[in-house]
Amino acid sequence: MDLTSYQKEFLAYLETKNWVREPKNLYQPIDYILQLSGKRIRPILTLMAADILSDSYKEALPAALAIEVFHNFTLVHDDIMDDAPLRRGKETVHEKWNLNTGILSGDAMLILAYQYFENYEPHTFQKLAQLFSKTALEVCDGQQLDIDFETRNDVTIDEYINMIRLKTSVLVAAALKMGAIVAQASEEDAELLYEYGLNLGLAFQLQDDLLDTFGNPETFGKQVGGDIIENKKTYLYLKALELADEEDQQKLLFFYNQKLDENSIKIDEVKRIFERYDIPVLVQNLIADYTNTSFSSLEKMNISSNSKEKLKTFGTYLMARSK
Amino acid sequence: MDLTSYQKEFLAYLETKNWVREPKNLYQPIDYILQLSGKRIRPILTLMAADILSDSYKEALPAALAIEVFHNFTLVHDDIMDDAPLRRGKETVHEKWNLNTGILSGDAMLILAYQYFENYEPHTFQKLAQLFSKTALEVCDGQQLDIDFETRNDVTIDEYINMIRLKTSVLVAAALKMGAIVAQASEEDAELLYEYGLNLGLAFQLQDDLLDTFGNPETFGKQVGGDIIENKKTYLYLKALELADEEDQQKLLFFYNQKLDENSIKIDEVKRIFERYDIPVLVQNLIADYTNTSFSSLEKMNISSNSKEKLKTFGTYLMARSK
Repeated sequence: MDLTSYQKEFLAYLETKNWVREPKNLYQPIDYILQLSGKRIRPILTLMAADILSDSYKEALPAALAIEVFHNFTLVHDDIMDDAPLRRGKETVHEKWNLNTGILSGDAMLILAYQYFENYEPHTFQKLAQLFSKTALEVCDGQQLDIDFETRNDVTIDEYINMIRLKTSVLVAAALKMGAIVAQASEEDAELLYEYGLNLGLAFQLQDDLLDTFGNPETFGKQVGGDIIENKKTYLYLKALELADEEDQQKLLFFYNQKLDENSIKIDEVKRIFERYDIPVLVQNLIADYTNTSFSSLEKMNISSNSKEKLKTFGTYLMARSK
Repeated sequence: MDLTSYQKEFLAYLETKNWVREPKNLYQPIDYILQLSGKRIRPILTLMAADILSDSYKEALPAALAIEVFHNFTLVHDDIMDDAPLRRGKETVHEKWNLNTGILSGDAMLILAYQYFENYEPHTFQKLAQLFSKTALEVCDGQQLDIDFETRNDVTIDEYINMIRLKTSVLVAAALKMGAIVAQASEEDAELLYEYGLNLGLAFQLQDDLLDTFGNPETFGKQVGGDIIENKKTYLYLKALELADEEDQQKLLFFYNQKLDENSIKIDEVKRIFERYDIPVLVQNLIADYTNTSFSSLEKMNISSNSKEKLKTFGTYLMARSK
């Protein structure tokens, strides 16, 4: 099956779930956010992994849904923490309803995610729930580090990579491993898939950081320059700070110490510094490194070369977003 | 063992857990709220149930901890929703830290609660996690109904009882049943314990409502009259509204439509109406009904009369708070 088919199957399954029950004020926002969401990358990964490792993706649908509901839970609570009014051009849950609804609907989604594992027999249930709890807690750790970094001036590149690993990559990795668990794959293959997802997730997030500053405004979904406006200490910024001469360092520190109303000069100046130290090329090299590492995990797997190709195709698809 | 011993054992177990790990800003608030909390009623129930049904409470310690951590998660998020500055005379988490910390630490606690079930073998794990998810979702439902009732003027007594069943009683009931599950008790005994907890929880909450208005200010932990100040549509209010003549009905509706700075007249007037229609006696009768129903579940259990007596003693202890 191709990616679009997995996506369709997942959406059809999502459609069969009746979210809205009593009390409506708790479950309507859950329906709203789940309808809103994008490419369904994580559940597709769960289905694809199960399909490749057992020739049957259908059994993985509840696990895929758990991952997607959890991901949407993080969106709802993160949007509150980031004070974000919009998500994909639509009002965020706490904006459309209110703060309390955002908190409580989010809580309910986290619990609902666990409930989908009840579709599996006890051993599989425990494996899935255990991986899920570990992953979910790591995502919380990552979110906390992201918040902590806002007010710290001594964040290292290693710390940044660790933060995006926790906040983004572990969930991509867990989505794949859950497919492997449902497929009763060997522990070794499951772990290699996890490693594949972890490195692919890092490559993906770094590319997102790169596009945030250097992407094409017409094809990049978000506002180009958003990270610079928000003074986000991304890899681009941290690497530039490391390589820059005294004058450019001071400039960077100066700009990343201000929140401005009018940002075009700030964005231009920061971009120019990034380019002066070849940051776009350095990031692209790092992305290539992580992508290659992810593909080398696939090579070690005990599956057909056809299956490896399929997983690679997904990686390539994910990384081939407009630059 | 007596109640104080269970409490001591639980606190000793709690002490062995090292909450504070990195990132500290996420886990310090968890340590803070868990140190703050009161009588530890719910974990005591889990330990007592396991002790009575299997002569060993130690195996139930992780389940007891899961229940307590979950309960504290609800406190942290509810305090945000209620905009409460204080809990047990100390600053609430979102007040001592900030909103984002309150949300994220709460999320982490909900996940941590699930992790404690990993101490059990797969079948027990699944039973515990399943009961836990069902209960946790019901608690969210109850919290949402409580919020909904604030702005509704047509809440019925049945709806109110259902709300407190969800918000308070199901967790007391689940705490007991988890002890039974760990003890590998029969499904029948586990269910009877659940029923005992459910009705005892209702009796407890109704008594809390009664004490909130008619309790002794010197021994009642919270501000007497708080529910009246907050216009809470408790059983007392709803029953009074049902029984009152036209004039008193209008008075009640008038007072419950205002938020005042100075509440002594409002509290006095509302109390007088409650007394005029014998509400304190009616509530006490209802409490006695639920307590008797809870005790009759115990009678049906397949355990020694000594064990029944022990469970009854707990119920009596719980209901014997200063009036």
